[in-house]
Amino acid sequence: MNYKDRISKLAAKFDELGVGGYLQVRYEGAHLDNVFYLSGFRGSAAVILVTPRENFFFTDSRYIEAATQIVSGAYTAGDNTNLKLKDYILPKIKELGLAKVAFDARSLSYAQYSELAKDFGAEMLVPADGVVEKIREVKEPEEIALVQKAIDINEEVCRRLTAMVGPSVTERDLASEHEYLCRKLGAQSSSFSQIVASGPNSSKPHAGFTDSPLVPNTPLTFDIGVNYAGYASDMTRTYFYMGADAKWEKIYGIVKTAKDESAKHIKAGAIGRDVDKVARDIIGDAGYGDNFGHGLGHGIGIEVHEAPRLSKLYDQPLAEGNLVTDEPGIYLPGDGGIRIEDIYLVCRDGATNLNHLPTELQVLG
Amino acid sequence: MNYKDRISKLAAKFDELGVGGYLQVRYEGAHLDNVFYLSGFRGSAAVILVTPRENFFFTDSRYIEAATQIVSGAYTAGDNTNLKLKDYILPKIKELGLAKVAFDARSLSYAQYSELAKDFGAEMLVPADGVVEKIREVKEPEEIALVQKAIDINEEVCRRLTAMVGPSVTERDLASEHEYLCRKLGAQSSSFSQIVASGPNSSKPHAGFTDSPLVPNTPLTFDIGVNYAGYASDMTRTYFYMGADAKWEKIYGIVKTAKDESAKHIKAGAIGRDVDKVARDIIGDAGYGDNFGHGLGHGIGIEVHEAPRLSKLYDQPLAEGNLVTDEPGIYLPGDGGIRIEDIYLVCRDGATNLNHLPTELQVLG
Repeated sequence: MNYKDRISKLAAKFDELGVGGYLQVRYEGAHLDNVFYLSGFRGSAAVILVTPRENFFFTDSRYIEAATQIVSGAYTAGDNTNLKLKDYILPKIKELGLAKVAFDARSLSYAQYSELAKDFGAEMLVPADGVVEKIREVKEPEEIALVQKAIDINEEVCRRLTAMVGPSVTERDLASEHEYLCRKLGAQSSSFSQIVASGPNSSKPHAGFTDSPLVPNTPLTFDIGVNYAGYASDMTRTYFYMGADAKWEKIYGIVKTAKDESAKHIKAGAIGRDVDKVARDIIGDAGYGDNFGHGLGHGIGIEVHEAPRLSKLYDQPLAEGNLVTDEPGIYLPGDGGIRIEDIYLVCRDGATNLNHLPTELQVLG
Repeated sequence: MNYKDRISKLAAKFDELGVGGYLQVRYEGAHLDNVFYLSGFRGSAAVILVTPRENFFFTDSRYIEAATQIVSGAYTAGDNTNLKLKDYILPKIKELGLAKVAFDARSLSYAQYSELAKDFGAEMLVPADGVVEKIREVKEPEEIALVQKAIDINEEVCRRLTAMVGPSVTERDLASEHEYLCRKLGAQSSSFSQIVASGPNSSKPHAGFTDSPLVPNTPLTFDIGVNYAGYASDMTRTYFYMGADAKWEKIYGIVKTAKDESAKHIKAGAIGRDVDKVARDIIGDAGYGDNFGHGLGHGIGIEVHEAPRLSKLYDQPLAEGNLVTDEPGIYLPGDGGIRIEDIYLVCRDGATNLNHLPTELQVLG
């Protein structure tokens, strides 16, 4: 990973922010993701201070041995600290003569900010909202390769799960097998709690899984992903257990058309809202507009959900190197639901589908 | 779960905070935990508004069906919202005539706070830091039963893992089996990424797991826990693979003594720092003071790490109904480490160890 390049891109924002440095804090539940992006470090406690001259990395005794091995040459390791920011970072900021530093306003809680403002003086702290996230939107080739690996493992697991489907199998069984198999195949873990939802459960877009056996002649939704070396995959396939009646066949076809047609509009420069509208119009014209409540897709990388978005609310253009899901759905409460989801790499003149598992209607069991 | 009681305890703080209501927000990565505690809802997007008269629960279309089933009679369900707080909550606050509302300063990011302050006016918002967390410290009987169940499943899995230990087994294999077995036995998932660390890896308190086979005649640390119905367990056992030399036998004995002796001081009214000191003194007197960097223990419940703490920095008294870990360790960088961890229920005159798996030195393989 090119940490030095990432840090340079961050430092290039200093003039615009009116600061001489940037603080990225990770402790007490603050997001790990930007610390991982800027350093490769995955522990639960870290402080990064980026300045134009030198960058500093602090962690505590639980991680100091691991951090020394992991953190790249981009940083000077700070003292083995108990993460009292004022004791370690503040003298360093004063020594470097920085009048103002930016801080990651999304990863710091309001409570953490208040403490920092008390120690540093509020006038020294400039909130930076989404600055690192913006840099993260355009993936490096190595990042794309890791997401591809996460996709490949996830698809291989999905192939094995579909072979297991049968009358004595529960949603929980299939979710457990996903977790087990993805780890056996080299993933760190699933990237989010599995959704394995049969029958009426499939009408809840974020259903999870239950101890229920599968319901014949209804949709069976797998929304699954794995974490490979810190990068996520996320895929949805809706199968039918035993069979599909004409109503479900028709709805499946609408969702598949919405996905395939909207995917043709994914390319650098396309506005997220416009791509969403392609799918939404197809579903709306078919009479199911009220049954597709969520956005069409989201960026993915270190986080399962990150920028950019394909949604009604997102009016920014996509850029080459973005990774986005395309996942339309139709949900009939109490009855069932269909969703199909792949990950696309945004290119100059179109998009490459990084998934390979077919999306044709398939009956299992 | 007694949600109404929890909400009453929260509302009882309003005078002290100088507010007429309390906002608990969960979206864009904010902590789930307090929303789950106050309502039982586990989705990734929710807003709770507690007032002395009526309480409101809002979520978005992905969760509205699930939420209607889950959220107890304690709340009035809000509109099916896209979580624009100002459109839904602000009119409600004005309608109720509330001049000020408190918000959870730990779960809201600074960026989220800024947006809220822009819409509501900063003068209406009063930060409440750790108010719900404080209520959560004293567990209800039903919560203790769920943690006990999480402990029991975790111990059963650990028994099975120790039986698997052998020459062709890797750290990853054991971690994968833990995840698989805990789910098969009824847990939702592990409660944190497994630490299965053999030989030199065991000297990093938060090591994770690797593809390495086990190293003979060195410590093999399992730091594992499961999530059962939203409640966590967390246990550490250090075994020896093939055998233990005299040095490790001695160190194991010191850690075990530190744990057993410090546990005798856990009771209602005991100061967290004082309990920590009992273990720290034993380890320090044995000459390993520099090799025990972390705190002695932490509260556990919905979160794996929550208040109260047993540490040098925690000067508050324990209370009846707290659940705390006791987990001293000695770590020799590059060589290996020992840690033993159980969960204790704080009682009036002592503490009950909720774990049953023995802590005597044990050689595996």
